Amino acid sequence: MNDTAKEPRHRTPIWQAIANTLRNDISEGRYQTGDKLPTEASLAARFSVNRHTVRHALAHLVDEGLVRTRRGAGAFVAARPTDYPIGARVRFHENLLAAGRRPAKRILDIETRAATAGEARALGIAVGDKVCAYHGLSLADETPIAVFESIFPIERLPGIDQALTEVSSVTEALIRVGVNDFTRASTRLTAVRADAAQAIVLHLREGDPILRSTGVNVDEHGIPVEYGRTFFAGDRVTLTLDA
Amino acid sequence: MNDTAKEPRHRTPIWQAIANTLRNDISEGRYQTGDKLPTEASLAARFSVNRHTVRHALAHLVDEGLVRTRRGAGAFVAARPTDYPIGARVRFHENLLAAGRRPAKRILDIETRAATAGEARALGIAVGDKVCAYHGLSLADETPIAVFESIFPIERLPGIDQALTEVSSVTEALIRVGVNDFTRASTRLTAVRADAAQAIVLHLREGDPILRSTGVNVDEHGIPVEYGRTFFAGDRVTLTLDA
Repeated sequence: MNDTAKEPRHRTPIWQAIANTLRNDISEGRYQTGDKLPTEASLAARFSVNRHTVRHALAHLVDEGLVRTRRGAGAFVAARPTDYPIGARVRFHENLLAAGRRPAKRILDIETRAATAGEARALGIAVGDKVCAYHGLSLADETPIAVFESIFPIERLPGIDQALTEVSSVTEALIRVGVNDFTRASTRLTAVRADAAQAIVLHLREGDPILRSTGVNVDEHGIPVEYGRTFFAGDRVTLTLDA
Repeated sequence: MNDTAKEPRHRTPIWQAIANTLRNDISEGRYQTGDKLPTEASLAARFSVNRHTVRHALAHLVDEGLVRTRRGAGAFVAARPTDYPIGARVRFHENLLAAGRRPAKRILDIETRAATAGEARALGIAVGDKVCAYHGLSLADETPIAVFESIFPIERLPGIDQALTEVSSVTEALIRVGVNDFTRASTRLTAVRADAAQAIVLHLREGDPILRSTGVNVDEHGIPVEYGRTFFAGDRVTLTLDA
């Protein structure tokens, strides 16, 4: 394995490979927020490069907000990804507060339209039935961490479109239309590339890794009330799942 | 949102954007295995491009094994990502059989070495304690879907290194050293970029999206017996989580 790794077939600049390694170390918790990173000299030795290359990698992580440098003192971990629990009860607001972050949502678009085939299948309605599509941005401490699209079956939930413009919290809006509790019936997760539109609103580069979560929420009777897709910026969020 | 999307700041070629859209449609189940994709003419109209560009995108998906074309009949979905359940009991072999795939594992490397700080923390042992590191490749129907590294605390599990070389199944190897059952205590998930070594063994391009799962397995008494990191090829695997 190490032998093959030494003959890379592709052309990632070495400084980028170093930045990726350090980013992974931080996201795996090998370094915590506030921890000092190894010195430039020791990173240069570890990767067999000169210090200029190490500095280039660190500058990149500083730009991303992950690392900060203090003159004469070295480089420190500035931020770690937000932990975001998934499971039967997913509540954005509570999740972020529990992670010590300030949650915020920004509505990008709310529209009423006909359900596509995929949406109809997920919600157990007919293709062409009216749905409310809520498209928005989730922020933690003012940094965008995810863009999402939630689809609500309007005939089951009359007034949901109006409620969403008024309260922005999905939990609150569902209560207003009579759904007092909902749980996650299923979740599907994979890694995809940020497309151009996602890259713009999430301040990423097109092609950057996105964790896509697709799920259906059901009411107390098991009836689907929301079909949602969330696109988390991979470098900013870690989904956690406790047994 | 749609307006901003129309002025891309980045330079993904349009054929690649089309391939990404179709790949996403397939991975979300909008098209199932065997389904016919829209015709070249209708895709050209949908994306406002000429048919040459559509053909380029389809050829790329054919190369990836996701689509096959039949002369005169059009393009069909050849393969969908493998569904892989996560939760308290994660068993590679059973998971793949349940998804209708032939599971296989290939050992890349098994070594005994000192635990790093991160490994020691995860396993509740001291830094420098001996661990067995099992590095391997998981395949579904002969296609590599994940590369993984599992760390076992050798002092707790004498003989685990030998057992792993003999049976390759972690479940079997743990039984041989007296761990008759284990469950997943915690799972952490995010999206990262494939590094050069991962790209080579997974037949990806460096930077392609990887779903990284980090987890600790514990025995019947809650004692950690395995700290594992799995790097799934994003385009080939969907993790599923039932409530």
